[in-house]
Amino acid sequence: MALPVSPLAPESFPELPPIEGVTLATGKAGIKYKDRTDVCLFEFAKPAAIAGVMTRSLTASAPVDWCRKNLKGGKARAILINAGNANAFTGSAGVAAVKLCAKGLVETLGCKTTETFLASTGVIGEPLPAQKIVDALARLHEAQRADAWAEAAKAIMTTDTYPKGASRMAVIGDKTVTINGIAKGSGMVAPDMATMLSFIVTDANISPEVLQALLARGADRSFNCMTVDGDTSTSDTLLLAATGTAGNKKIIDKADPDLRLFRRALDDLLMDLALQVVKDGEGAEKLVTIKVSGAASARAARRIGLTIANSPLVKTAIAGEDANWGRIVMAVGKAGEKADRDKLSISMGGVVLAEKGERAPDFDEAPVAQHMMGRDIQIEVDVGVGRGRATVWTCDLTHRYIDINADYRS
Amino acid sequence: MALPVSPLAPESFPELPPIEGVTLATGKAGIKYKDRTDVCLFEFAKPAAIAGVMTRSLTASAPVDWCRKNLKGGKARAILINAGNANAFTGSAGVAAVKLCAKGLVETLGCKTTETFLASTGVIGEPLPAQKIVDALARLHEAQRADAWAEAAKAIMTTDTYPKGASRMAVIGDKTVTINGIAKGSGMVAPDMATMLSFIVTDANISPEVLQALLARGADRSFNCMTVDGDTSTSDTLLLAATGTAGNKKIIDKADPDLRLFRRALDDLLMDLALQVVKDGEGAEKLVTIKVSGAASARAARRIGLTIANSPLVKTAIAGEDANWGRIVMAVGKAGEKADRDKLSISMGGVVLAEKGERAPDFDEAPVAQHMMGRDIQIEVDVGVGRGRATVWTCDLTHRYIDINADYRS
Repeated sequence: MALPVSPLAPESFPELPPIEGVTLATGKAGIKYKDRTDVCLFEFAKPAAIAGVMTRSLTASAPVDWCRKNLKGGKARAILINAGNANAFTGSAGVAAVKLCAKGLVETLGCKTTETFLASTGVIGEPLPAQKIVDALARLHEAQRADAWAEAAKAIMTTDTYPKGASRMAVIGDKTVTINGIAKGSGMVAPDMATMLSFIVTDANISPEVLQALLARGADRSFNCMTVDGDTSTSDTLLLAATGTAGNKKIIDKADPDLRLFRRALDDLLMDLALQVVKDGEGAEKLVTIKVSGAASARAARRIGLTIANSPLVKTAIAGEDANWGRIVMAVGKAGEKADRDKLSISMGGVVLAEKGERAPDFDEAPVAQHMMGRDIQIEVDVGVGRGRATVWTCDLTHRYIDINADYRS
Repeated sequence: MALPVSPLAPESFPELPPIEGVTLATGKAGIKYKDRTDVCLFEFAKPAAIAGVMTRSLTASAPVDWCRKNLKGGKARAILINAGNANAFTGSAGVAAVKLCAKGLVETLGCKTTETFLASTGVIGEPLPAQKIVDALARLHEAQRADAWAEAAKAIMTTDTYPKGASRMAVIGDKTVTINGIAKGSGMVAPDMATMLSFIVTDANISPEVLQALLARGADRSFNCMTVDGDTSTSDTLLLAATGTAGNKKIIDKADPDLRLFRRALDDLLMDLALQVVKDGEGAEKLVTIKVSGAASARAARRIGLTIANSPLVKTAIAGEDANWGRIVMAVGKAGEKADRDKLSISMGGVVLAEKGERAPDFDEAPVAQHMMGRDIQIEVDVGVGRGRATVWTCDLTHRYIDINADYRS
């Protein structure tokens, strides 16, 4: 099934400069796809500090369990990723597959078992042919390059229609540091579960504990505010590794003022990647930004925003370019968070459609209709009870979502 | 937009016999639709006992507020319903519209304001042209008939593709009693909120308090276990009226043993109507029954079942006739209820696909593939932690759902 590239795709893959201390390679293990790369290996010359945000699914995949365990050590020498098979709900065979891959990494790289990180994405419930991945390891090890980021972003794709990457620079003390990241979506993308897969590397010298705090906070404002279909992957994995090769004084305190610019750059990169994932939501024709204000708390605002963002009726109205704000009222009503129906106001594209609990008198529908025909839909909702605010992002629900998902496994 | 009739529709509208003490009439008020009836009036010759289950939406419509208030009195002389406009999120104009309709009823029927019940379904946020309804009241009052149930079921439709009705008989003491009901769906159908609209009348003599207990319990096992798209209407209204004309000794205790057969008949009728609503879910091609067992509680089982039932990925897989049980694993994992991944088992069409946390070895895919091609999809999930059970119903997510909802308001 060849999918057309999302109309929301960026014009090209960005420039991701080499980062000292990490190399990458991709290969064809033939797990599911033909004639394309499906495995990717990140190697760290020396143990890198590592942090991770993993799915909260109670039916998490075997590789997620593996990463969670190894994250406790805080050190990484390898991240091995495959596309086409999620190694989820594969029972003892799944655990054996993970161990086989890790053993292959230990033998090929001469690293410790606890320094190996694994991620798998694709079909759930099919046994992973791990030996095919292990057989590819020697070639992947030999083919390592510092400039293979674009290839890596391609190798981890499943129903993605374009590779996703981003890069940022920042200054820590007197050193310039770089952050590179890649990500893949595009279904089963839902909040509180990071994206499906995203891997970020920096040359900054930061302790694993501080990295973890930075990543958790950043994910909460980016990946955890995005939703495509409200479904939660068993495999969501977001890893951040720091090689420390930039030579800055090691950061061991998350409140260190020297972190300010780095934190901002990391947050910006996470948001960039998360938006790329939403823009490649299965069947997406429009990016929808929903700003909720006036909620009882920021958390309540996010929940209201996500309820709007996950409503099939809202999403299909947007696909139909219909400013059907009645469905937004409905979604606010079902979110289960405090809202004052008679103070509710709703804007689209900057035009107030409803205020104080009813249709705005004599609003001009023409600019709203024009706005709905665009790619970038802006919705603002004030629920009239407090000062909580949040912004969430989603895409519309189109025929292509059905095309893609009614026939994914076959 | 003429919609094709759902392939899951019953062959014909059932026989609904006259019930002494209630008459009905329908008319064309021209609220939104052309060339079809859009208003319906139920008249009770004497005040009937009445009970109701209303939406839990926090942005409930003006008629829902009205019914909730009048339900406290427990007596009904009239139920007035319109299709095409929900009179929801219409602020003070909505309240005025409700009062105007009630005033019209009081003047036409000579009843009390507290005995009037109103329901509106259709677009949210547009002012309801209530005067058009009031103008139709005299004709509706004159046209009252005991045998207009099928016409009533048609007049309250919106995107429904067929009228929904059911009738049951029961015995209370030495008297035979009848229960008739009509309902309409078909989008914004989600649990804990009844269906969109359903009106049930019996000639049994039962107090409003007992009726309320019976209805709440019955709705919890029928309408509240159904979902089409997870969206919750602002207007959901389920009313049950009892004329008392059957002449049975009045039931004033919900534990009265004489209620046994009536309760069973009512539950059966509610389930019948609820299934008719799901089978007319927007774009439905298949009815999906999901039985969850092994949960921590019945409530947990229902929540897991509804999470499966609302998952776009599960629903599109079923539309594609793909026994993609991996997506069921995913949905169990995101439900937020206790589940043991390594004890999980999943069957479709009676064939075990997965057990003890992995794919069942050597299961025969042919009968499952055959089952998925049918209209009636059976899914059984055991989550392996307790004894809680629940059954929920939904439909698949097809292209027609998008067709219908991307262009409803226009």
